[in-house]
Amino acid sequence: MTGKLYIVGLGPGNDALVTPEVSAALSQATDIVGYIPYVERIAARDGLRLHPSDNRVEIDRSRHAIDMASEGKCVVVVSSGDPGVFAMASAVFEAVEAGPKEWRELDIQVLPGITAMLAASARAGAPLGHDFCAINLSDNLKPWSLIEKRLRFAAQADFAMAFYNPRSKSRPEGFEKTLQILKEECQDSRPVIFARNVSRPDETIRVVPLDQTTADMADMRTMVLVGSSQTRVIERCNAAPLVYTPRSVG
Amino acid sequence: MTGKLYIVGLGPGNDALVTPEVSAALSQATDIVGYIPYVERIAARDGLRLHPSDNRVEIDRSRHAIDMASEGKCVVVVSSGDPGVFAMASAVFEAVEAGPKEWRELDIQVLPGITAMLAASARAGAPLGHDFCAINLSDNLKPWSLIEKRLRFAAQADFAMAFYNPRSKSRPEGFEKTLQILKEECQDSRPVIFARNVSRPDETIRVVPLDQTTADMADMRTMVLVGSSQTRVIERCNAAPLVYTPRSVG
Repeated sequence: MTGKLYIVGLGPGNDALVTPEVSAALSQATDIVGYIPYVERIAARDGLRLHPSDNRVEIDRSRHAIDMASEGKCVVVVSSGDPGVFAMASAVFEAVEAGPKEWRELDIQVLPGITAMLAASARAGAPLGHDFCAINLSDNLKPWSLIEKRLRFAAQADFAMAFYNPRSKSRPEGFEKTLQILKEECQDSRPVIFARNVSRPDETIRVVPLDQTTADMADMRTMVLVGSSQTRVIERCNAAPLVYTPRSVG
Repeated sequence: MTGKLYIVGLGPGNDALVTPEVSAALSQATDIVGYIPYVERIAARDGLRLHPSDNRVEIDRSRHAIDMASEGKCVVVVSSGDPGVFAMASAVFEAVEAGPKEWRELDIQVLPGITAMLAASARAGAPLGHDFCAINLSDNLKPWSLIEKRLRFAAQADFAMAFYNPRSKSRPEGFEKTLQILKEECQDSRPVIFARNVSRPDETIRVVPLDQTTADMADMRTMVLVGSSQTRVIERCNAAPLVYTPRSVG
């Protein structure tokens, strides 16, 4: 086996957020594997085969990528954001662990990327400037009871919070319940940031006090950030407010 | 005021992890402000003034940067990693909020970077592949009691954890207490990753079961990652083990 498997993060959407390390891997690739909209971000060129696949087939996609690398190809699995944060790296390692022993000896490298919460945080100011947590609100792969438990502990720990996949058409009630839990656990004025399509031309950033939030403010293209009890909002005349969490706890 | 203030992340050390967006800002800069070792990463050129300063003067440094931007300069404040994660962005916004009203109308942009936990996670596999939290273990700016509270809630929430600034010469006992708390709250086999100087030539990655960890395994150049109860370790013959947290909770 002399192939190579890269699992890379393309960042949140804007090519100016793709690291040179990832660009170099893409330029060496013989095969690109990933969810359709992410593979669409890769420019076609001679000698490069694109293998787009649909959502929710992460393990099949992983096996396909590993198979090709085992045959000697240079395969790049693309994720948006960072591949290690609610993305393809864990799926590939699940497939490696469940697969034949030879797969473990493959040359596999994960190349980090700008995950959505960092891009959203930067646009809003620095809401994640102190201790924080990241929670995937999708209950496809875990029970809602675990999400609720984590939300309550996170609020009691006074973490700022970043929510991935807050709300899909198929399960709109999860985010409604999330906001209800936060309203029970946190003060009314807690700033909540809805960052949609961050770094893309149609990006929008809204800052809303917790007691004025409603579930329809988020969809699956929205990153939701919630401040801690210490998070501050600086109002400005000619621009959106700046939201930041101070370094010290007063 | 026609100046501009960028607060940028240089990533963990390797220039291949600096985003093109950050490189573009650096190439426009008239003035670079930051902690000495980060400013040392910026190449000198005509028309560029470097303003390195010592650690623990973040607010003075921020005011200086804002002052120069107010005078019309294009100022870049450099952080390692991501500027919004335990870095300079919060310090700049603290200075803005406490300063004259005009400062709020300055053109300020935060440009995200690869924060240490993402780079460390990528090197180890995907230990942050499920819900996780990030805690700064330095008690310079918060009481130890709050760190302890957060550690216990994070363990009870079964988050994977990323620890920044785990251990300094001046307060070596904090990380010892951290490991003690984890040993009380988590199972013995929980994988702990010590990632030192990630992405640099002298990078080292160690994976150690929790009950075999000792405080001297970390220093201030170490990022510490702790798995959740679900985190898996894949042993390999010819390479370091792969550590990952599955996407689903079984």
